[in-house]
Amino acid sequence: MSAPGTHEPGTIEPGTIEPGVLCGVGTGPGDPELMTFRAARRIGEAPVVAYFCKRGTTGQARRIADAHIRPGQIEEALVYPVTNEIAHEEDSYRERIEAFFDEAAARLATHLEAGRSVCVLNEGDPYFYGSFMHVHLRLRERFRSEVVPGVISPLAAAAQLPTPLVMRDDTLSIVPGTLPEAELEAALRPAQAAVIMKLGKQLPKIRRVLDRLGLSARAWYIERASFDEERVRPLAEAPEVAPYFSLLVIHGEGVRR
Amino acid sequence: MSAPGTHEPGTIEPGTIEPGVLCGVGTGPGDPELMTFRAARRIGEAPVVAYFCKRGTTGQARRIADAHIRPGQIEEALVYPVTNEIAHEEDSYRERIEAFFDEAAARLATHLEAGRSVCVLNEGDPYFYGSFMHVHLRLRERFRSEVVPGVISPLAAAAQLPTPLVMRDDTLSIVPGTLPEAELEAALRPAQAAVIMKLGKQLPKIRRVLDRLGLSARAWYIERASFDEERVRPLAEAPEVAPYFSLLVIHGEGVRR
Repeated sequence: MSAPGTHEPGTIEPGTIEPGVLCGVGTGPGDPELMTFRAARRIGEAPVVAYFCKRGTTGQARRIADAHIRPGQIEEALVYPVTNEIAHEEDSYRERIEAFFDEAAARLATHLEAGRSVCVLNEGDPYFYGSFMHVHLRLRERFRSEVVPGVISPLAAAAQLPTPLVMRDDTLSIVPGTLPEAELEAALRPAQAAVIMKLGKQLPKIRRVLDRLGLSARAWYIERASFDEERVRPLAEAPEVAPYFSLLVIHGEGVRR
Repeated sequence: MSAPGTHEPGTIEPGTIEPGVLCGVGTGPGDPELMTFRAARRIGEAPVVAYFCKRGTTGQARRIADAHIRPGQIEEALVYPVTNEIAHEEDSYRERIEAFFDEAAARLATHLEAGRSVCVLNEGDPYFYGSFMHVHLRLRERFRSEVVPGVISPLAAAAQLPTPLVMRDDTLSIVPGTLPEAELEAALRPAQAAVIMKLGKQLPKIRRVLDRLGLSARAWYIERASFDEERVRPLAEAPEVAPYFSLLVIHGEGVRR
């Protein structure tokens, strides 16, 4: 494994092309104004701009970064295979997706070997549940890699509330709502503040857990943090099924210990 | 308490000055390039720019924002009182600090009442253990407030590592290292990934907890994430006493559940 901070796997023979750098770039949570200056610069400088997306759309990360992408750049849209016909728990689904990631990494490796650095756009932050990981883990032993951090959706969502997310000695738990009920409760129990992501159809289970922990009164439901269509409501008013890009924020109490 | 998303406490009588808006602005963790476009714009547009700092320096937030502050703006340096002579646990220390925050809020209220919006610079993100809270909590009932989120130091630090912070169904705990040992362990126990802030002299205690939880091998010590002087080392190589702006990052394992 490469030493931290350098991500440089080895030396280069004289006369060969210096490989490009694989750069995961956080675009921020949705509003293009919440991108960082560094992200914009790295996107504009990159010979190749890559991004994961679903068939039929170029996806959120590409939309957010649009103003910084220049006509001369090579774009690599890494389009997820359509897998509606296979249940997500099936081995064949996982095999299909993993094969897709292998192929995506190979496409980017072709550019890197040719000396063309690749900027992989990632909503939010590349190292925070980011799609960047799928190519990063496959390529990091062979190529230099860098990560440009970004603003994450939990903070964009919390910014809509009248109370800070964490203060003083509050602890914060960030958890996927898809966890089994007992593990969700265990992850939230010791914390004063929490953010629950990937809500989907999990709200009934999540409500039970928050009720048992006495956290419901501090819980807010936020859809599409930082988009124009932002909606902020107490958990009691959240819909039955939550759309993608929605999450729950439980703000802290500012405990002193 | 104001409804979420609006922070608007009431209506304005015709003929009176419309009060200014109190805006907490995240400057990011240290590198000015990691500020967002929105933060830069809000700073440049604000009649008044305020920031907390220690005596003898204008502090990190002001340094990070420097390029966006214009000659014509009013600057309010909110300078912490010198309290070296009082132990921090003493009631008189707390009274002194709280009186300082009351006075800081009053100074900003003068501007807001006169119709001058105030931008309060906050390292990282205003709602993430931010100093913004001290004036926000005192003023939010009287004035409109807004928060511009920012890149937080845990993500700037994690970006230096060769492995993502959280993947798949990992949970993340963010905790202050100053917690009593039993509570620190309880907060970290259920998580796959963690960030421990406010290290100071807490490393011996923290090491014991991480050893008991089997997390030491995945723990990295990072100083001044995003400054030129960044240092990334395994926990085993961390110094006895950690300087300010240092933290520990334990990356996740990408568990599937």
